[in-house]
Amino acid sequence: MATIIPLEQPRKHRPNAALEVLTSLVAEDVFAVNQLIVQRMESRVDVIPRLAGHIIASGGKRLRPLLTLACAALCGYRGQRHRKLAASVEFIHTATLLHDDVVDDSALRRGNPSANALFGNEASVLVGDFLFSRAFELMVEDGSIDVLRVLSHASAVISEGEVLQLMTTGDSATSEQAYLEVVRAKTAELFAAACRIGAIVTSRPASEEEALRTFGLNLGIAFQIIDDVLDYSAEQERLGKTVGDDFREGKVTLPVILAIHRGTEAERAFWKRALNEGDRRDNDFAHAQDLVNRHHALRDATLRARHYGAIARDALGMFPDSPIKQALLDIVDFTIEREF
Amino acid sequence: MATIIPLEQPRKHRPNAALEVLTSLVAEDVFAVNQLIVQRMESRVDVIPRLAGHIIASGGKRLRPLLTLACAALCGYRGQRHRKLAASVEFIHTATLLHDDVVDDSALRRGNPSANALFGNEASVLVGDFLFSRAFELMVEDGSIDVLRVLSHASAVISEGEVLQLMTTGDSATSEQAYLEVVRAKTAELFAAACRIGAIVTSRPASEEEALRTFGLNLGIAFQIIDDVLDYSAEQERLGKTVGDDFREGKVTLPVILAIHRGTEAERAFWKRALNEGDRRDNDFAHAQDLVNRHHALRDATLRARHYGAIARDALGMFPDSPIKQALLDIVDFTIEREF
Repeated sequence: MATIIPLEQPRKHRPNAALEVLTSLVAEDVFAVNQLIVQRMESRVDVIPRLAGHIIASGGKRLRPLLTLACAALCGYRGQRHRKLAASVEFIHTATLLHDDVVDDSALRRGNPSANALFGNEASVLVGDFLFSRAFELMVEDGSIDVLRVLSHASAVISEGEVLQLMTTGDSATSEQAYLEVVRAKTAELFAAACRIGAIVTSRPASEEEALRTFGLNLGIAFQIIDDVLDYSAEQERLGKTVGDDFREGKVTLPVILAIHRGTEAERAFWKRALNEGDRRDNDFAHAQDLVNRHHALRDATLRARHYGAIARDALGMFPDSPIKQALLDIVDFTIEREF
Repeated sequence: MATIIPLEQPRKHRPNAALEVLTSLVAEDVFAVNQLIVQRMESRVDVIPRLAGHIIASGGKRLRPLLTLACAALCGYRGQRHRKLAASVEFIHTATLLHDDVVDDSALRRGNPSANALFGNEASVLVGDFLFSRAFELMVEDGSIDVLRVLSHASAVISEGEVLQLMTTGDSATSEQAYLEVVRAKTAELFAAACRIGAIVTSRPASEEEALRTFGLNLGIAFQIIDDVLDYSAEQERLGKTVGDDFREGKVTLPVILAIHRGTEAERAFWKRALNEGDRRDNDFAHAQDLVNRHHALRDATLRARHYGAIARDALGMFPDSPIKQALLDIVDFTIEREF
C-alpha cells in the first residue's frame, strides 16, 4: 500500500514513529501495565500463564491499553487506576483473540504458531475464559461501576459481532453495511471503551467521554478496515508478512466486497466458488489479489478508512493542544498508513 | 444406585420432592428469573437466543439460581435484586456448559444433541462468551461491587478448574486430592458464590455470608461427586439415562480413582489402556462398570459425598428454623440421593 503524505510532514515517512512517540509520552504507565499483565496472568495451573504468555508476547502492538493510558493523560489524569484498567482491556482483547483462533481454526497468528496450534483448542477456550474473568477481577479491584458497565457491554457486543461475522463468513453477498456492523461490534467497540475509560477515571464531563468514545470507535473501524486491506497487500507479501488468511478462512471483508460489487459475472462466480462453496484452489489467492487490485478495492477501502480516521481526528477538537493530543492525532494516521 | 433412607423419613422416597418444595417456596422469584433469562439472552443476532435457548431449555435443574433465591429468602430478603443476580449465576453456568461441550467435543448433553453438535463449536464458543458478558451486564445493573467481586473471582476459579481437569484427563494416576481440587474449582465455587449472594443482597453479617459459602461449597462438591457416580450407575442405565460419558472422554473421576487404588495390576493396566492411551473398545465401559462395582467405588464415593453434605447441613445451624431452611437441608439429601 502506498503511503500518501503531504511533504510538510516528513516524520510520517516512518509511520510507526507515531506509535513510538505516544508510547514514550506514557512510558512509565506502559511499563507498569506490562508488569501487571505478566503478574495477573499468573495461576497455580501452570499452562495458563504459559499459554497466555505465548499470545500476549507474540508481538501485538498493545494499542488498546496504550489508548486507555493516552486518553487518561489527555484528560489530565494523575493517578494509577488507569493501569489496572488498561491491563483489563488487554486481557479482554487477548481472550477474544484466543477464541477467534479457535473459531477460525487458525494455525498461525502473525506468522507464528497460534496458541491453539501449540496448546490445543480446548486449552485456548478455557484460558480465554480465564483471562476474561481476570479482566473483570481487575475492574472490580478498581471498583468503578461505570467502567464495569462500559466494558461488560463492550464484551457482550464483541461476542455478538463475532457471531455475526461467523454468519457472514462464506457469504459473498455480504453488504458493505453488514461488514461495517461486524467491524463496529467486533473491533471498534473495544477501542471506544478503551478510550472512554480515560475520561471516566478522570471524572471528566460527559461531553469529553463522548468525544473519546467517538474517537475510539472511528479509530477502531479504520484500524479494522486497514487490517483487512493488509491481508490482500502485495507490499505485505514482499515484506515477508502473512497475507491471505481472510481469503483462506472465507471471510468477506471490504476489499472483497468492493471487488465483488465492481466485478464481472465471471468474477462473481469465482468469489462464489472460493468463498460460498469453500472450493479454494492453488493460485486462487493470487487471482483474488489481482481482482481486488484491478478494481482499486485496496485503494478505495483505504479511502473509506480515511473517512473514519477523519471523524476520529475531529473528535479530539475539544481538547486543548498538547503533545499527547498531537500523538493521538498521529496515531490515527499511523493506523491507516501502517504496514503491519 | 440404591437410595438408603431411614424409615422415619418417608417423604424422601421421592428425592426430588425436596426440589419441588424449595421451588414452591420461592415460586414467584423462580418465575421472574425464568422470564429474565429468556429476556436477557435476546440479541439482534438471532442465532444467539436460538443457541442459548437450546441449552437453557434442555432440562437442567436450574439449581444454582434456585440456591441464590432460597439463600436470600433464608436471610429474610424482601426485594427483587436477587432475581437479576440469580439469572447472572445461571448465565455463567450456561456459558461454562457451552464451553465444556466444545472442550469435550460432546455430541450429547443429557441425552439430547449438544449445542455444539447442532450449531457448531464456533458458535458455541462465541455464544458462551456472549452469555458470560451478559452475566456481568446484569451484575453491573444491580451495581454491587461485592457481588461482582464474588462472581468474577468464581469465574476465574472455574476456568482454572476446567484447565486443571483438562490436564488430568487421561491420567489414571490422578489422586483423590487432585480430583477434589478440580471439583471444588469447576463446580463448587459457583455453588458457593450463588449462595453467598443471598447474604450479600440482604447485607447480613459476614458470619452468615461465610456460613452460606460453606453450605454452597460443600453442597457443590457433593453434587459433583454424585454426578460422577451417576455416570457409572447401572440404575441410571436401566432408567434410560445416558451413562459412560466420562469414561468415553477419558475423565478420571472419583469412582475410577477408587477402583484404580483398590484394583489389581491387571485392572490398572485396563484403566491405563482405556484412559491414558485412549484405546477404548466395545464392552470396555461394561467392564469399567463391573470394576467400580466390584470395588464398591460407587457406594464409597457416595459416602464421600455424604461427608460434604453433612458439612453443608451443619453450616445452616446458625439460621433459625423455617420452612426455607428445612427445604435447603432437604436439598442436600436430594443432591446425594437424586437419580438424575
